[in-house]
This record gives sequence, C-alpha cells and structure tokens, in this order.
Amino acid sequence: MTPWSELAAANEVFAASFPHGQLDRAPRRGLAVVTCMDARIDPLEILGIRVGDANVLRNAGGLVTEDVLRSLAVSHALLGTRLVAVIGHTECGLHGASNDEVAARLGATAGEADFLPFADLEESVRASVERIESSRLLPRSIAAAGFVYDVRSGRLRAV
Amino acid sequence: MTPWSELAAANEVFAASFPHGQLDRAPRRGLAVVTCMDARIDPLEILGIRVGDANVLRNAGGLVTEDVLRSLAVSHALLGTRLVAVIGHTECGLHGASNDEVAARLGATAGEADFLPFADLEESVRASVERIESSRLLPRSIAAAGFVYDVRSGRLRAV
Repeated sequence: MTPWSELAAANEVFAASFPHGQLDRAPRRGLAVVTCMDARIDPLEILGIRVGDANVLRNAGGLVTEDVLRSLAVSHALLGTRLVAVIGHTECGLHGASNDEVAARLGATAGEADFLPFADLEESVRASVERIESSRLLPRSIAAAGFVYDVRSGRLRAV
Repeated sequence: MTPWSELAAANEVFAASFPHGQLDRAPRRGLAVVTCMDARIDPLEILGIRVGDANVLRNAGGLVTEDVLRSLAVSHALLGTRLVAVIGHTECGLHGASNDEVAARLGATAGEADFLPFADLEESVRASVERIESSRLLPRSIAAAGFVYDVRSGRLRAV
C-alpha cells in the first residue's frame, strides 16, 4: 500500500459514516483560530470546540503573515468571523531557529529566503495580534486575543 | 462568560486529561497536509490520522502561497516531512468569488488586495501541487498529491 492509498482507504471508512453533511459554511462561533502547523496541535480539542465552529489558519509558527491577513479578511467578509484566537506554542521549531540553519538543511538552491524564525515566543504572539488589530484589510470591530499552548501540559495561557 | 473565558474553561477540561504530552515534534508519518481554513474540514478525521501524524497548513482556499512554501520548507528542513497532500474542497467560499466582491464587503479601506479567488477547483489544486513540485525551496524528492474533499459526502477524490 502506498501512503496515498492508505489515506484513501481510511477516508472511505470516514465517509461511510460521515457526520458533517449538513454543516453550514459560516463558522458557528464566529471564530477563527490562527496557530502553528505543529503535528502535536489539534486546535479543536485544545479549545473544546467542534467541526463547524471555527475557521482554522495554520502555518509554520502560527504567525500572522500577509497570507493569514488575506485569509482572515475572507473569513470576515464571506463567513462573518468576528473573533480571532492566535495560538503560539512551546517547543516550536521556529523559536530560536535561524534562517541560515533552515537554509543549510535545504541545500544551496534555497538561497536567501526568510523562514520567519523568532527569538521570543510571547512577543511573537503579541506582534501577530497587533498585525490583526492594525491591518487595513480588517475592521476594528474584530476582537483578537493571543495565547501560548504548552505542548507538554495541554494548557493554554493568555499573553 | 466571554467567548475567551468559555474557551479557557474548555481548555482546562482538556488539559486535565491531556493525552499528548509525550509526542515528538516530527510528524510520525512524514506528512504535511495543505487545506482550506473551512470550518467543516477536520484534516485528521478526513484522512483517518491522529494528532502527531502530520503538519497541517491551512489558509483561505487551501492554496499553496509563498507562506505555505515557506512553511513546507521549514516542515521538511526541521521536521523531515517528505509527503504533501493538498486538499481543496467543494463549496469553497473563494471558488467563483471575485476580489471586488470580497473588497466590497470589507469596505473602502481594504483597497486593491488580491484575495486569491479561483474559477476552477481542480485546476486550482493542480496548480498548488505544481507550485510545490517547482519550488526552489523544496527538494524534488518531496512527493505531493492533490485531492478534492466533498463537504457533503466526506469523500476525498484524487485530482
């Protein structure tokens, strides 16, 4: 079995008793969650919410980049999102990393890219919240809040 | 209760019986999943995988943007990811939308931004896979595959 055929077979099982066929496109809680791609993070279980409750935006670091602002604008404009939770986490690969380190592991072709490493976790989360609050794409009525998730305890802490 | 205190209370319940404290940072399956922020999508249950198995990247449309390429490069370089599943979905808000429509709902301040609407779902997924395959940030050894997820049936279809 290839990895793809294994995933396809698992999807057949899921679809056979599919529970979400009547869900609406708009998130029930008017919530968007911005967090890291990290494999240890399941945003729904962390927040005690369900499929259908929230738009979920994830990238390396859980950083509010231009692409996240684009996505939040779409989420607000087309889906009515009014709340944004930004969740950084402990032991993030980008925390304390350097562009040189990432580039060295990718080889020479990667060149001079900025992988957006950060030195201070809480400061990174605060900067992301501020980017939402000051974005020209988003109305001032959107409420954003920042959190740090501890991957060893499962606890969220407001920052 | 504010929305934030409600989420914090739910997180307390989750953390009280936290099951993931020993997980490794590197995704067990060497897999990254790129998909849409859509609230109806839970990538793990769709693919029959678990917390710890995959890096998860999500934005409006599930599009392979520069930020996704940055994230995939970090995922490969620091976490050993070798497989990427790109999952578009039916009834996506960006499918058939226009920049003018999104901008009009955001008001005049949004200006001329490109929200990356697309006209053809399968073509959009294929273009995303091709961006991974041709990115200078990623080695040619990374295997990417495209899928469309049907939000009414739960089924994935390879494209």
